Amino acid sequence: MPSDAAVTDLLAALAYGQLSAFDRLADDARMAPTLASRAEMSAMAALEFEQYRRVAQRLTDRGAVPEDAMAPFVAALESYHALTTPSTWLEGVVKAYVGEGMAGDFYREVAAFVDDDTAALIGEVVADDVRASFAVREVEAAVAATPAVAGRLALWARRLVGEAISQTQHVLADRESLMLLLVEGTGGLAGVPALITRITDRHAERMRALGLD
Amino acid sequence: MPSDAAVTDLLAALAYGQLSAFDRLADDARMAPTLASRAEMSAMAALEFEQYRRVAQRLTDRGAVPEDAMAPFVAALESYHALTTPSTWLEGVVKAYVGEGMAGDFYREVAAFVDDDTAALIGEVVADDVRASFAVREVEAAVAATPAVAGRLALWARRLVGEAISQTQHVLADRESLMLLLVEGTGGLAGVPALITRITDRHAERMRALGLD
Repeated sequence: MPSDAAVTDLLAALAYGQLSAFDRLADDARMAPTLASRAEMSAMAALEFEQYRRVAQRLTDRGAVPEDAMAPFVAALESYHALTTPSTWLEGVVKAYVGEGMAGDFYREVAAFVDDDTAALIGEVVADDVRASFAVREVEAAVAATPAVAGRLALWARRLVGEAISQTQHVLADRESLMLLLVEGTGGLAGVPALITRITDRHAERMRALGLD
Repeated sequence: MPSDAAVTDLLAALAYGQLSAFDRLADDARMAPTLASRAEMSAMAALEFEQYRRVAQRLTDRGAVPEDAMAPFVAALESYHALTTPSTWLEGVVKAYVGEGMAGDFYREVAAFVDDDTAALIGEVVADDVRASFAVREVEAAVAATPAVAGRLALWARRLVGEAISQTQHVLADRESLMLLLVEGTGGLAGVPALITRITDRHAERMRALGLD
């Protein structure tokens, strides 16, 4: 079983990821072409905040101060967002689905290495069904109207993946506890490639769902 | 009793006010000096969204399309926010409490003129206890540290009130249904001064609570 510190770090990284996703989704919602789609992305932001609140509460229950626990992860998450600030509504939609989806997959994978209670909480707060149907509908409509959009959004998604991987590596390099959690969980590095393959496969599924593969 | 159209307009104005408050509070939260205070203002934003959702649902239940119903109120609310964009964290805090508080008082007053169900919903979605304790704590601490801040924030609050009144007048001038609701509700204009006095009194109470009177 991983150390208490590792589980706290994992929850703290997840919590700050959700707080920053709330913030960015709320911001990106402003680019919506209609009030209805703006309200939908705002709803996703509000949901991220609810999920943040649950994870922060769990940190508190574990005796941690959420703000202190999250502090080590602020720089990496903010870098990710700064390097992937959407310049159009559709970029925001793809980021909400692809970026948050991949983060969710990562946490779901790592959840297999921690205690059942923590794993259950993680599983509940990273569900992305709402984002999926929303993103698919928005992107399908846009590509139907302007087919050239697909190529640009596919490139954009590749950039999101690249930055997400890069920032995850920074976090793992800085936080020994999380690196150990991952290495021990996968059985001494041997399982890491399979984990990456699963995350990559799920990313590919999302791209197919969006019609951007 | 006011017309169905007037009640729909009232709920739509309230709904868009909450959706735009969500958006602005989420944005202003970024100026927070600590992660803890950022999370608190983000929580207020998320709460506005939940309240928006309830009012939008009521609009749907009444047979209205929320987006269409809200459209006439977008310009006035966006003007208010554009003219009162906080440039510091404390200006954001004061706006969250004083601006949203005064809007809430206005809707609470007008709720007296509509059916009980609508009035009950309005009463529930405009409560401001959370904002109050948060704003008082933040402003008290800032003024204790730098007394000169008080004068600047008092001027800022006056500007918020001025712009809120100005935009409310624009809305009433454009939407006959709401003007009639107000005039008929107060008994043929006679009650309007008393209504304004009550809203002003509550604003003064807030300023006293903040130590900015």
